[in-house]
Amino acid sequence: MKVSELGEFGLIALLADIVNSTRDQKDSSWQGLLVGIGDDAAAWRARGAVQLATTDSLVQGTHFDFNIATWEELGWKAIAVNLSDIAAMGGIPEYALISLALPGDLDTDDVSSLYRGMGQIASRFGVAIAGGNIAAADKTVINVTVLGSLESSSMLTRSAAVPGDQIAVTGYLGSSAAGLRILKQGLKVDAEAARLLREAHLRPMPRIDEGQILLHRAVKAAIDVSDGLVADLTHICQASKVGARINQNSLPIHPALKKYFKSDYLQLALSGGEDYELLFTAGNLIMSRLRKTMPCPVTVIGEITDGTPEQVDVVDADGKIVQWQKTGWEHFKSRI
Amino acid sequence: MKVSELGEFGLIALLADIVNSTRDQKDSSWQGLLVGIGDDAAAWRARGAVQLATTDSLVQGTHFDFNIATWEELGWKAIAVNLSDIAAMGGIPEYALISLALPGDLDTDDVSSLYRGMGQIASRFGVAIAGGNIAAADKTVINVTVLGSLESSSMLTRSAAVPGDQIAVTGYLGSSAAGLRILKQGLKVDAEAARLLREAHLRPMPRIDEGQILLHRAVKAAIDVSDGLVADLTHICQASKVGARINQNSLPIHPALKKYFKSDYLQLALSGGEDYELLFTAGNLIMSRLRKTMPCPVTVIGEITDGTPEQVDVVDADGKIVQWQKTGWEHFKSRI
Repeated sequence: MKVSELGEFGLIALLADIVNSTRDQKDSSWQGLLVGIGDDAAAWRARGAVQLATTDSLVQGTHFDFNIATWEELGWKAIAVNLSDIAAMGGIPEYALISLALPGDLDTDDVSSLYRGMGQIASRFGVAIAGGNIAAADKTVINVTVLGSLESSSMLTRSAAVPGDQIAVTGYLGSSAAGLRILKQGLKVDAEAARLLREAHLRPMPRIDEGQILLHRAVKAAIDVSDGLVADLTHICQASKVGARINQNSLPIHPALKKYFKSDYLQLALSGGEDYELLFTAGNLIMSRLRKTMPCPVTVIGEITDGTPEQVDVVDADGKIVQWQKTGWEHFKSRI
Repeated sequence: MKVSELGEFGLIALLADIVNSTRDQKDSSWQGLLVGIGDDAAAWRARGAVQLATTDSLVQGTHFDFNIATWEELGWKAIAVNLSDIAAMGGIPEYALISLALPGDLDTDDVSSLYRGMGQIASRFGVAIAGGNIAAADKTVINVTVLGSLESSSMLTRSAAVPGDQIAVTGYLGSSAAGLRILKQGLKVDAEAARLLREAHLRPMPRIDEGQILLHRAVKAAIDVSDGLVADLTHICQASKVGARINQNSLPIHPALKKYFKSDYLQLALSGGEDYELLFTAGNLIMSRLRKTMPCPVTVIGEITDGTPEQVDVVDADGKIVQWQKTGWEHFKSRI
């Protein structure tokens, strides 16, 4: 079977099985592992502390295109998407390792720009770029691993959602996908909307502080929106063995999106992905307190249900289930 | 300038400069960093312990070819090359993160085989595969990050060689490059030589135990042989600001290599690379004790000098400097 037929999630499940079948349960590393395959970051006990680690790639042709992004923006984004995974665990990012696959005819100024973009965001979040690796390749692949830690042993995971929880999201949804369309198709929009939506795509800001607040305010379940709202909520539902219902009229969508993407802003918000907002669930009381203390918009968009496990229903104002379009293998990128 | 013109080491120096210029010295992550860009692995203080991290990629077309290696062998090797970096610091490997870039038309059985190979070696060395990431791409890129730790705060680094040190290496040199030639060119050799040399290339065995012994026996400077003997010794000389002299007649070369590669076994040993042996330096007393206690062959091949810094001279039996051929950008892979 082709991997594109099995699909990303089928493949991840398959690989997790193989890893589990070859591991030796007596190894201290496995015993210290708190979160393995299947969350935003791995977590393990390290002499009293909890260490977090996550890795993510940007592949030329799949995730970026030099007609759209500068090398500096790529550098920023390659680090940002990993910091976002640490944020989704409630962790503090500390170290980054960079692994580059580069064509030999690339200009060194471009690689310098890439590293400048990495340095900008790393410095902003107190992350040390500790090392890495360079290899020759036909196309550019930028792989970043970020290591971080937790202040205590509690953390945000995908597996802690329970029926009755409200589902909320920080910031706006769909802006990154809209920004990509503007960049790709040269759509004409006003300057402010262009800036805002392009920035959302090219220079996402990981929600590190917000992740810390969620953890301190007793939130248990979270993920960052990278694959797309419904896809990422499905990850929570799978890990937590629950269902979910989203009210499409509640989705936080920036006015610029509604103005310039009249026919498909909902589609962009549901499946666009790469928003790097935090999607989380909590009981009503925790949620109402949170909405007052978070330094960014927090919008309740639905609730966790005891319905069909792993199923995410999107409903309209009348409570009727609406259809939405999934994206395929070609552009995917998924945590395992 | 093209990156291939600047060269891998020029590029690494450039990127290190950019990282240093963008970092904030007051950040606790930077303050805790013990070894940054420019050694086999990064090292930092983590609540009393020392954490090690390394990352390395195998790129289709650059580092592997499916006419030569099976997916299972690739999985083994992708982990092995990272474990070798941890060995070269004297560390104990603990966790691995896998980041895959894969074409959609790949068969899932192949990915399963890859993970089986990874599981085999991970389990052998007590390493937990803690997570990772999958992305779509035209060609396969396998990126592995391995995290490990040190028992104490002392470690093996590239920067600790001093003039007068003997230079030694574990095992044999050139076997991996010879194995690659046999695999690529279908050279006819006897079954035992074929098995041995192919294994050296396809299933290298990282010197984890040997790295531990080096550290306990007060060795300070080490690197693993991945780029090639002279290239890797040059890394030590650059980091330690010393020169080095190698006696080509002392190089440990397997009899099978001498038999089947009569005209170029020295070239293979000097620059073939991917041996994943440990190359280290120490004073005479430490070295003579080590040679009795190591569980593998240890061969003294030369000495660290106070000659031209960063220069590695290869000399023949008469002490005359011999020329050897460097390899180019196309197949390189280097730690930053």
